[in-house]
Order: sequence, then structure tokens, then C-alpha cells
Amino acid sequence: MKKMNMVIAQSGGPSMVINQSLVGAVVEAKKSAKIGKILGARHGIVGILTDDYLDLRKVSAKKLEAIAQTPSSALGSCRKKPTADDCKAIFEAFRKKNVGYFFYIGGNDSADAARIVAEEAEKVGYPLVVYHIPKTIDNDLRSCDHTPGFGSAAKFVASAIKGDDLDNRALGGVKIDVIMGRDAGFLTAASALARVREDDGPHLIYLPEVPFSEEKFVKDVKAAMKKFGRCVIAVSEGIRAKDGIPIGAKLGSGETDSHGNVQMSGTGALGDALAKLLKTKADIKRVRADTFGYLQRSFPGIASETDSLEARAAGSAAVKSALKGELNKGTIAILRAETKRYQVAFAARPIADAAKYTRSVPKQYIAKNGHDVTAAFIEYARPLVGELPVCEVF
Amino acid sequence: MKKMNMVIAQSGGPSMVINQSLVGAVVEAKKSAKIGKILGARHGIVGILTDDYLDLRKVSAKKLEAIAQTPSSALGSCRKKPTADDCKAIFEAFRKKNVGYFFYIGGNDSADAARIVAEEAEKVGYPLVVYHIPKTIDNDLRSCDHTPGFGSAAKFVASAIKGDDLDNRALGGVKIDVIMGRDAGFLTAASALARVREDDGPHLIYLPEVPFSEEKFVKDVKAAMKKFGRCVIAVSEGIRAKDGIPIGAKLGSGETDSHGNVQMSGTGALGDALAKLLKTKADIKRVRADTFGYLQRSFPGIASETDSLEARAAGSAAVKSALKGELNKGTIAILRAETKRYQVAFAARPIADAAKYTRSVPKQYIAKNGHDVTAAFIEYARPLVGELPVCEVF
Repeated sequence: MKKMNMVIAQSGGPSMVINQSLVGAVVEAKKSAKIGKILGARHGIVGILTDDYLDLRKVSAKKLEAIAQTPSSALGSCRKKPTADDCKAIFEAFRKKNVGYFFYIGGNDSADAARIVAEEAEKVGYPLVVYHIPKTIDNDLRSCDHTPGFGSAAKFVASAIKGDDLDNRALGGVKIDVIMGRDAGFLTAASALARVREDDGPHLIYLPEVPFSEEKFVKDVKAAMKKFGRCVIAVSEGIRAKDGIPIGAKLGSGETDSHGNVQMSGTGALGDALAKLLKTKADIKRVRADTFGYLQRSFPGIASETDSLEARAAGSAAVKSALKGELNKGTIAILRAETKRYQVAFAARPIADAAKYTRSVPKQYIAKNGHDVTAAFIEYARPLVGELPVCEVF
Repeated sequence: MKKMNMVIAQSGGPSMVINQSLVGAVVEAKKSAKIGKILGARHGIVGILTDDYLDLRKVSAKKLEAIAQTPSSALGSCRKKPTADDCKAIFEAFRKKNVGYFFYIGGNDSADAARIVAEEAEKVGYPLVVYHIPKTIDNDLRSCDHTPGFGSAAKFVASAIKGDDLDNRALGGVKIDVIMGRDAGFLTAASALARVREDDGPHLIYLPEVPFSEEKFVKDVKAAMKKFGRCVIAVSEGIRAKDGIPIGAKLGSGETDSHGNVQMSGTGALGDALAKLLKTKADIKRVRADTFGYLQRSFPGIASETDSLEARAAGSAAVKSALKGELNKGTIAILRAETKRYQVAFAARPIADAAKYTRSVPKQYIAKNGHDVTAAFIEYARPLVGELPVCEVF
């Protein structure tokens, strides 16, 4: 049996547990006699194109475990869609290094990048097993019941909203919290997990899946203020009016990446615009807006335990499946068993199942009033997040 | 011995441990035969003026302990400077309720409110023992080595910067993080606690104590980009140019409270303005800005242990001191022993020591280059924050 080397890399937005997937894959690969070198490419495919690798066999088990516990992408990341020329350069590099396995950890765009590499390899006859390992705090891969990274980001969001709701109880008025999620509102929806008591926030939740209307928004806030005497609002950075263009994108820098995604995070513009709207149209004096920003994907020390374990297992499953030769271009799907007790299985699926297109929050998770989630969503999301801090009120 | 009733209330911005001080005071008061009713006024002096109280003797010990662990001000808060007429109304209400002790938990403005109440009481001959219990994440009370609330907020900030620095390692460019602190830069300075490795962020730290120059800022960032290939910046919401007017205030809503403070938190405007400056003047493509906002004072489950214990002890010390009759208008000072091992003492001081005026970050804590802190600051702040999550890099 001829040994082949493997390359693994990380791509797209970091998460709190993406390094668990990396370490899961590396530990699994170390067990196999089929795999020679285990090379970590820095900054995704950029590292392959610039010959920037880390020899992961040389990293001690102790250090690997510490990396697994650390948020963000330890190998570095990129947002790059490979061209046909990039692919040629990649195969040339792989041929020189005797690379037969390529693992790419990321979201739908990263899965698409991996798909392109896999298809181009087939076209030019370069023998390469390519596996995408799922990761995205957005929870929007079509191939997974839920994605590694989501549970931990959701835990951050729900915890933050819990604290912010207490802050709003103390000082009153309206608080707007802008939450990540370009196209899918899962993370914003997770804010609902913060609720314990009848009057706990968030009192209003706006997802990109429901066309946003300024008039309805102002009306909703006025009604909530009347009912609760205060109002905490969770709003997705991706909310869009009927025209389908995200409001945040209109306010932002107009910057795009090579997958065509418009920048929306890393600015407070949407929150500030909504605050201004309420001050002028709803005549509410105290309106504050926070944008949770990158903290929700990178805050250390609070990852969801379930999420950590599953991210680890997804990395391991990809290597196992690749070595078994189940597919030569695959992605790891996370499937939830229809049992009462929460249980998942990991299965290899065609890479195209995860690539490019995303999924939205399904209709049964969105409340009919258009500004809340359903009990079915809470049931879906709770096990992914685990225990939240207990907060008491008088 | 005639029993007198006591009123306790919370004021100003919430913190993660202000309820520890409340519960510390209540538990101490319960031990004394001198105190009758223990009344919690809701929303600070507003609750006294509107006769809105909670009978804290009726709250179970178990519930009180849960409240102590909960961030934000459980009794509600306000930002109100009492007028002479307010004071008259307060004494009338106190007389009816036989109130002889008044405890007010808050920062410098709250101490000033308590001072006004105490002085007016003396003027009109109402017998009232008034104690201010220190609280502020800004760490800017002149009466304390450090203030309850600061250690926990500093832990949040340092943790967040640790994670955000890893995020910036993965994707590069410049990341600006705007941190609370209207007049004092202690909390922004605490971002330096995130550093472990030579190249860890924050790479630049801007405090309100150092006049902010756009030209220097652009130059600093260019130099950091050259040195590290990336740049994480911690900047106080209170930075001001030589004219002394906070830049954030110029960009903000212009809203002020009754103590004359201009609103700066709850908006992303300053971060966005600085990001725009770097994009245009420093020609850096990827610039992102986050404003940590209210999360840094309200995030549940991560309070500093030392901070929690001290906040509790400060509440307890105020009641002890009031009952001993040490002062009839006092504040609790937290003093640090000049021992090698971190140790503090709590002492009663005249209330005016904490009131109105704040202290700034002292010169010996600010690096000569104007964009960093010194080793002396780290030594000062480390014990207040305690252990931070361990993060590993390749």
C-alpha cells in the first residue's frame, strides 16, 4: 500500500470550535498507515498556492489539544474562490508533495471551493480524495441538521441577550442587538433561548427570512413598549426589505469577497440606523444599539460542549470516510436521530450537497407574527447550545 | 435601642457584580437588631420618589444568593441627580417609613446623588445615615484603589480581545474594538491583559487620557501593519482630540443625562468613523470595527471571582460601618495593601471622596509612546481580573 500525504486547511469565517474539527481530523489521520505527511496549509488554499505549510505530525499531542480548545482558525483562513488556473497550480503543488487527500473545513463557500478543486482534479486526471468538513456559525448548510460552530455562537448570543435583557430591565427604553447571519437567521433566532420568564427579552426577533418593513417594525416596538414598558430586539444583520437587498449592505462599505458576498459585519451602521428610526418615528427617547460583531464567533472559554464534541467528531469522520474510500469528493453530514433523547450521526454525502447554496430558517420555526420564533425552533436549538447561565430577578 | 428602617438602591450603569454589593449589604443588615425593615427602592431614588419598594427581608436567602450571581442591577437603576425639592420629598417619604439608613450603590454620579441627599438631610435636620457603596466598571472613583465591577468588565474585555486577536490572525487586516469608559481609560487599558505572546494583540491602545491625533493614529496603524502584518486596536469610547471634546460625543446623538454626561455607548459610530479613516488615509483594505457595548458590563457567567468577593464585601462593609456610627455620610474605600501578595482592606471615608469628580489612568500606567500601557498597569490590573481562558497558536 502506497502512502499518500494529506493537506488540511481552514476557510471562511472562524468559529469557536473549528480547531476541534482540525484536531479531530489530524488525530484520526495519525492512526492510519495510509497517510504519510499531515500538512496544514496556512490561510486555506492561499497557503497551498504560496507553499505555506505547517507539518502537523510534528506538533505535540498536548499542543494539539490546546489548539482544539482555542477559538478561531489556528491555521489561518481566507475567503477565496479558486479559479481553473488556481486549481492547476494546486495540483502541481500537490503532485510535487505527493498529496492524495485534501480536507477543507468551512461553510458553503468553502465547500464550493473544495467542490471546484475536486471537479478540476477529476477533469485533469489528478487522483485526489477531497473532503469538506462542515463549519459555520450561520447554521445554513443544506447537508446538515445543524453545523459545528453554530451551537457555541448561539450560546454566546443567548448568554449575551440574557445579560442585556437584565441591563434593559435596569435602565429601560429600547435595546437593539444586531446578530450575525448573512442569509439565514438561525443565530438571531437562537436569541430566544435566553428567555425563561414571561417578560424576558428578546421581545422582538427579526430574521432575514421575513421581509423587513420599517412600518411594521415601528408598530411592533410601540406595542412591546406598551406591554413590557421596555423592549429588547434581536435583529439579524441580514434583514432585507421586499426588494431582497440586505439593509445592512446598503448602509455598508459595499466591499465584496471573491464569492460575491457583501460585507455586513464589522460595522455598527445597521443598529444605528434602526435606533435612529425608532427615535424619530416611534418617539422613544432611550434607544441603544449594539452589534455583537466578531465576539459571537471568537469569544474564548464558553464553547458549547455538544458543539465542541460534534466539531471534533466531524473532523474525525471525514478522515475515516476518506480512508475507507466511501466517496472521492465528500462532505460530512450531521444527521439528527428522530429519538426523544438528542442523538446525532455523521455520514458522508456528495460534496455538492453542502456547496454554494445555503438553507434558510424553515417556516415551521418562524412565528406567524413575523417577529418571533416557534416552540419547535427552541426544541431544535436547545440541545445544541446546552446549559446557559442562570439569572434571577426580583 | 430604637429600631430604624433602611433603604437601599442601585444607580448608574449596571455591572456584573453590583448585585453582590446589594446582597452583601442585605445579609449584613439582617444580622443587626438595630435595623427594622430592609427596603429596596426600585430604580434608585426614582423608587423613593414614587414609593416603589421591595421588602428585602421577605426574599429568601436562596433567591438572594441567585440574585447575587446575576449581572445588572436587580432593583433597577436610574441616572438622576436629586434637586433640593426631590430631597424634601425623599425625607418626607423616609419620615413616614421611619427610615434612618440609606445605602446607594453606584459610581461617582451616584455618590454625588447620595452626597446631596446627605447634605440636604443635615440642612433640614432629618436624621439620616447615608452610605455610598462603590460600583463602576470605569474604575474611576478617587476613593478606591479599584472599584467593584471593574475586574469583571476587564475580564470580559481581555477575553474578548484574546478571541478577537485570534480572529484577526486568521483573516488579517485591521480590527478596531471600541471599549467603554467615558473619561477614564482603565477598561480599555485592561485589553492589554489579553497578551501572552510577543505578537498578540492589542497592538495599539488609545485612552481618553492621551489627546487623540488622527495623524498619529494612521501612522501607528501603518507601523503596526508593517511589523505584525495585521493590527488589533483597543480604543476607548472616550478618546478626545486636544480640544477635550470626546470624538464619540461629536458623532453621537447629543443626548445627555441629568448629571450632564453625553451618551456615547450604544452606538457603533466611533468605530465606524475610525474604520473609514483607516480605509481612506492608510489605504488598508480590510478594516473592521466592533463596539463591545453593554455586553462588557452585563455578560452573565464570567464575573471575576475577586471582583465578586470584593463587591460583596463592600456592601457588607457599608452596613457595618453605618451601624458602628463611624460616619454619618460615608463611602466605602477599597485600599490595596502594599504587600507582595494581593490584599485589600475596606475603610469608611467621607462620601465627598467618591462623589462627582473622577480619576484618570495615572501617568505611570501609560506608555510613553501614547498608544500602550506599562508593565506597572498590568501588575496593577492582573489580580483584579484573575484567570483568563488559555489560547494556543501554531
